[in-house]
Amino acid sequence: MADRVELITYADRLGGDLPGLAHLLATRFAGLFGGVHVLPFFRPFDGADAGFDPADHTEVDARLGTWDDIAALAQAHDLTVDVIVNHVSSSSPQFLDWLAHGSDSEWDGMFLTFAGAFPDGATEDVLMRLYRPRPGLPFTPYTLADGTKRLLWTTFTSQQVDIDVRHPTTRAYLRGVIARIAAAGVRRVRLDAVGYAVKTPGLTSFMTAETFRFIDDVTAWCHEQDLEVLVEVHSYYRRQIEIARQVDRVYDFALPPLVLHALLAHDADPLLAWMAIRPTNAITVLDTHDGIGVVDVGADGTDRSRPGLLGPDQLDALVESIHDASGGTSRLATGAAASNVDLYQVNCTFYDALGRSDDRYLLARALQFWTPGTPQVYYVGLLAGTNDIELLNRTTVGRDVNRHHYTSAEIDESLTRPVVQALLRLIRFRNAHPAFGGDCVVDGGGSAVTMTWTSGADLARLEADVATGAATVTWTADGTQLTAPLDGLP
Amino acid sequence: MADRVELITYADRLGGDLPGLAHLLATRFAGLFGGVHVLPFFRPFDGADAGFDPADHTEVDARLGTWDDIAALAQAHDLTVDVIVNHVSSSSPQFLDWLAHGSDSEWDGMFLTFAGAFPDGATEDVLMRLYRPRPGLPFTPYTLADGTKRLLWTTFTSQQVDIDVRHPTTRAYLRGVIARIAAAGVRRVRLDAVGYAVKTPGLTSFMTAETFRFIDDVTAWCHEQDLEVLVEVHSYYRRQIEIARQVDRVYDFALPPLVLHALLAHDADPLLAWMAIRPTNAITVLDTHDGIGVVDVGADGTDRSRPGLLGPDQLDALVESIHDASGGTSRLATGAAASNVDLYQVNCTFYDALGRSDDRYLLARALQFWTPGTPQVYYVGLLAGTNDIELLNRTTVGRDVNRHHYTSAEIDESLTRPVVQALLRLIRFRNAHPAFGGDCVVDGGGSAVTMTWTSGADLARLEADVATGAATVTWTADGTQLTAPLDGLP
Repeated sequence: MADRVELITYADRLGGDLPGLAHLLATRFAGLFGGVHVLPFFRPFDGADAGFDPADHTEVDARLGTWDDIAALAQAHDLTVDVIVNHVSSSSPQFLDWLAHGSDSEWDGMFLTFAGAFPDGATEDVLMRLYRPRPGLPFTPYTLADGTKRLLWTTFTSQQVDIDVRHPTTRAYLRGVIARIAAAGVRRVRLDAVGYAVKTPGLTSFMTAETFRFIDDVTAWCHEQDLEVLVEVHSYYRRQIEIARQVDRVYDFALPPLVLHALLAHDADPLLAWMAIRPTNAITVLDTHDGIGVVDVGADGTDRSRPGLLGPDQLDALVESIHDASGGTSRLATGAAASNVDLYQVNCTFYDALGRSDDRYLLARALQFWTPGTPQVYYVGLLAGTNDIELLNRTTVGRDVNRHHYTSAEIDESLTRPVVQALLRLIRFRNAHPAFGGDCVVDGGGSAVTMTWTSGADLARLEADVATGAATVTWTADGTQLTAPLDGLP
Repeated sequence: MADRVELITYADRLGGDLPGLAHLLATRFAGLFGGVHVLPFFRPFDGADAGFDPADHTEVDARLGTWDDIAALAQAHDLTVDVIVNHVSSSSPQFLDWLAHGSDSEWDGMFLTFAGAFPDGATEDVLMRLYRPRPGLPFTPYTLADGTKRLLWTTFTSQQVDIDVRHPTTRAYLRGVIARIAAAGVRRVRLDAVGYAVKTPGLTSFMTAETFRFIDDVTAWCHEQDLEVLVEVHSYYRRQIEIARQVDRVYDFALPPLVLHALLAHDADPLLAWMAIRPTNAITVLDTHDGIGVVDVGADGTDRSRPGLLGPDQLDALVESIHDASGGTSRLATGAAASNVDLYQVNCTFYDALGRSDDRYLLARALQFWTPGTPQVYYVGLLAGTNDIELLNRTTVGRDVNRHHYTSAEIDESLTRPVVQALLRLIRFRNAHPAFGGDCVVDGGGSAVTMTWTSGADLARLEADVATGAATVTWTADGTQLTAPLDGLP
């Protein structure tokens, strides 16, 4: 896949539906994005977890379009699509059939029960060792049609029933989903929440050796279908490095908090330290449909004696600085009060996290784009969007603060703003300059950062001071060397 | 204890505080109530479960008054006070000390952990056999000061930590609480949620043989202090009958739904059937600070083949009829949407449950007062109160719909209403007429109910038609026999 900037977006919140999104990409955003990640568009796309709990994972929600629309997008762009491997919706036909018929259901065995995970029972020690994204135990009682009560493993919400990925029925189900996606010409699948997919009694059951074997299996099924695999795991940074060695692609989820720390605390050292060790087979991000991950730069959640990329005091200060910069709106959207699925994330648009400073926001994007990997831009960040308090209040879902529904008029208005125009120029520069096909050298210390890409005679250098927010770019063009402030790129 | 009508009320919601409540009882309500049950007044009286989660169970909340105020109330009335035997607050000094010091705490052993309950672990079968007032598992993780994670048994909210009633430390704690209450001259203690207090691996752990032995122990501790014991258990009606045989006093929680069924479905037969078998060492109620219990007249929750006093269709119709009668306000306050502690209760004032019909409400009270046992009237019912949607919206606690805070002006205004005046006359009649010291004969069928008390030459008869709501009372007075409509009592 070409190392050009990618877009990540919902099908409904940017262009209204799949044809609307395709139209935007062909007109206002023409030539900007090599790849596009369309967040779950399955039926229904607007369930308890905003598409990550489809009732039918092989059906495009008719309100958004058809598989033909997906195929058309895949013709024009390298398309990424989610495969939800950890669970199915409690309203899926498979689960409803099992509730109705129990052991006579053809899907019996597909759903992970407490007894299935712990046939001999579980002790407190075993239960407390489980690594969880939320407080409380991951189990929900369901009553079958015959009155039998069963306890189902539910890692996320009680409407998302975990599946037993060891069972042949489950594996056939997952292969069917992957085949349907591949048939539309999709280039890459993202394995959602795969870190939690394999449960092993007595272990944390998060990214264990058995999880890696499962990822290997899924990767093999995907490669058979010419699909690349992107693994979504929020985790301790050393574990992320290990994971990156074993899979096609990972996210660099450490980058967003480190860039924020640099720009808010005027301290680039933790970012520079990460640059020296980070994996480069990464999708780089500043913002996603989820919150800004704190766990990715914190101490090891399973062994607090292993320090993170930021210390506890730096992390606390970072979270407070984001809340200050956003005028307190991120505080309303974060933590237990906001029905958060993941308590370890701060919900805020990246533009608001930087206090709506155009200069610092543009510098954050430049730091992202100069970092080795494939840069991905979230649709709200593309338009330098601000926190949507109205939507948050309506849904009381914390993450909705960064999931605005854009009208066409809002898109057109956003595109006229200088910060968005400068960002589009930066994206085109990143896509076009040949130096980015070469190697990157990072230097600096304190508040200074210099990142230099060279490829033969071509050069693209970013020189920045994270304390002042000043940044210049030096680049080669037609044999000469030019320098301009970051917002002065051609 | 004299068989006169009792009042049940919060200390703060009727008269503002304990002295205010005492003043009301001595003035506006003078001579009305033989006994008074003051709901938890411990510190704090306004925690996560409205007083049932005190941080200090031996301290009167200073905002309400002092132990001297309790003693003064106990001088004037037969006073009932709650003893919370199932749990302590997570903010109690005992639990905080244990979180800080673990096994070095003097309270170690007092709190029921998963490992304490299931030293060898628990299977799905064992977990699903537990009888629970709420969906989900009754466990909450807590982290001790040294980083140890423990899983605590929490039957109700996660802030109410169950205690191990087998442990000597717990038993000494409970005896201390009982002694403090007895020292104030209290006459009766109510054992709150005692049905859940004893956990036995492999059993429902609800009102098991071991629970009865625990109740026997607590009863013995109370009798040593001249305290009568009232057991609060919502349960299948046959189990209630068994429980009543083994304790001083129970509630008749089947009465409210059966009276409502009679008056809303025009069918007195289930009520008449219950009259023939119900225990008479009961406190009769229509309304309490909790919701209207459905479980008390439904099929056996642990064995659905054992039918209840109402069939499933009758129960469904009853719940819908209540919602209809209340104009839909009870629906807002009931079920999972309203943060209900107990999903098997309908939250509604009794007056609203009868569509604010004065005649039917008065008839319901007459049916209660004619039923053998000690009649108890909830403060909202005393004033024929309506659903407090404003309070419900503010707290989002379903039961608050029936927990209005009365100002003095509201009390005075309510006392002028004909329905309240008729109710006060009915209470005085029930307290004063000598026939109620004798025996009761119940007769009727279809929509007709006749209940006749006789004692020597004294007689007090209620004749009612639950379809029309018409009711007359016939009674002896000074050797003659009088008859009047229910609202025409002297």
